[in-house]
Amino acid sequence: MHLIDVQTGLLADNDAIAAENRAMLATRGIYALNVMSAPGAGKTSLLERLLPLLATRWRVAVIEGDIVGSADAERLAKLGLPVEQINTGGACHLDARMVHHGVHDVVHGPSDVLVFENVGNLVCPAEFDLGEDDAVMLLSVTEGHDKPKKYPLMFRRAGLLVLNKMDLLAMTDFDVEVAVAAARDVHPGIAVIRTSCRTGEGIAEVAAWVERRIAAKRGRPAPPSPKAG
Amino acid sequence: MHLIDVQTGLLADNDAIAAENRAMLATRGIYALNVMSAPGAGKTSLLERLLPLLATRWRVAVIEGDIVGSADAERLAKLGLPVEQINTGGACHLDARMVHHGVHDVVHGPSDVLVFENVGNLVCPAEFDLGEDDAVMLLSVTEGHDKPKKYPLMFRRAGLLVLNKMDLLAMTDFDVEVAVAAARDVHPGIAVIRTSCRTGEGIAEVAAWVERRIAAKRGRPAPPSPKAG
Repeated sequence: MHLIDVQTGLLADNDAIAAENRAMLATRGIYALNVMSAPGAGKTSLLERLLPLLATRWRVAVIEGDIVGSADAERLAKLGLPVEQINTGGACHLDARMVHHGVHDVVHGPSDVLVFENVGNLVCPAEFDLGEDDAVMLLSVTEGHDKPKKYPLMFRRAGLLVLNKMDLLAMTDFDVEVAVAAARDVHPGIAVIRTSCRTGEGIAEVAAWVERRIAAKRGRPAPPSPKAG
Repeated sequence: MHLIDVQTGLLADNDAIAAENRAMLATRGIYALNVMSAPGAGKTSLLERLLPLLATRWRVAVIEGDIVGSADAERLAKLGLPVEQINTGGACHLDARMVHHGVHDVVHGPSDVLVFENVGNLVCPAEFDLGEDDAVMLLSVTEGHDKPKKYPLMFRRAGLLVLNKMDLLAMTDFDVEVAVAAARDVHPGIAVIRTSCRTGEGIAEVAAWVERRIAAKRGRPAPPSPKAG
């Protein structure tokens, strides 16, 4: 009971800061995307493929969350985008407070799109709103089609489910139909796109989904942004 | 600072209960193993292969941790072993309090070996001692060889690293030597065994590792236990 009270307080505190983050981003019309998955599902690999497509139209910034180290931030910085690394220490997720300063910097910079790459974890990241517009989750087919039943909150939170590592599908007993049915059982409206970050399959579809979401947020058909530089 | 104080208090509380669990198990000479990994790395599949080998000599019981549901417990119950399911609700790990009643039941039953299958997560399970003798972690080769650098505490906690899904190795860019070197960088003494739960590769080696650990705990060369029934 004590633990639950602490947890409830932390989440209420988080939601208040997330609301501040969201309001700051709204003042500049910046679209924010929270990318989540289990460790090793391919978040950074997806972003290496996806962000160059988005960057043809939008100025993209990244806030990168990891327990320790900066390996993923270094990979994404090679794309020529601004990347801020957050080390969460013991914490198994990003929270609204951790990203607050980064959001502030992005709001006062030249960006149109902000991507949070969350800590690899299917549980806690789903509980902590960062102030994003949309959440995307990756499920790699090597993880098994039982995951929506085992980690339902994550699938409920995400607007888009990316089924990644499709190039390995034939080597696994992953059943795409079972996985999609299970995901839609917990979240009927979830969009699903199949990708392979090795072959490039589906990446353009993910970019198109994000473009539609940006257009919906801005209330008009995805206009080109005046890119800096 | 507030958050850190709460966390420190919770962990101290956990360690006290874990010590009770460990003392209870010691009164009966029961060996306990805590099995951890990211979601979908193959914990249940490994146990489906491993526990029948251990069960030829020992009476094995399982405490199964999941956020929701009982799919994994049902898989393991088919082995004819006693399995207790714990649903952690929002919590992304087992803790010593959650398993305390289950440990009590096992201590008052006929078991020689107790296996905890933890929640799929590379972060928090490593922080919560359950009272086990040894921790094993699975890393599937589809997750990437960068994981020891990104989740060091888990690799530091585990006495054995199981590199699973070796049947998929050729389809990935996973470098076994890089992964093992990175794991030994954070934990020089960690044992490493390569497995495939599809082909059966390495499972006998894992069983032999567990047998050696049981023998070490009991202070004599792994004697057969009088099996019930």
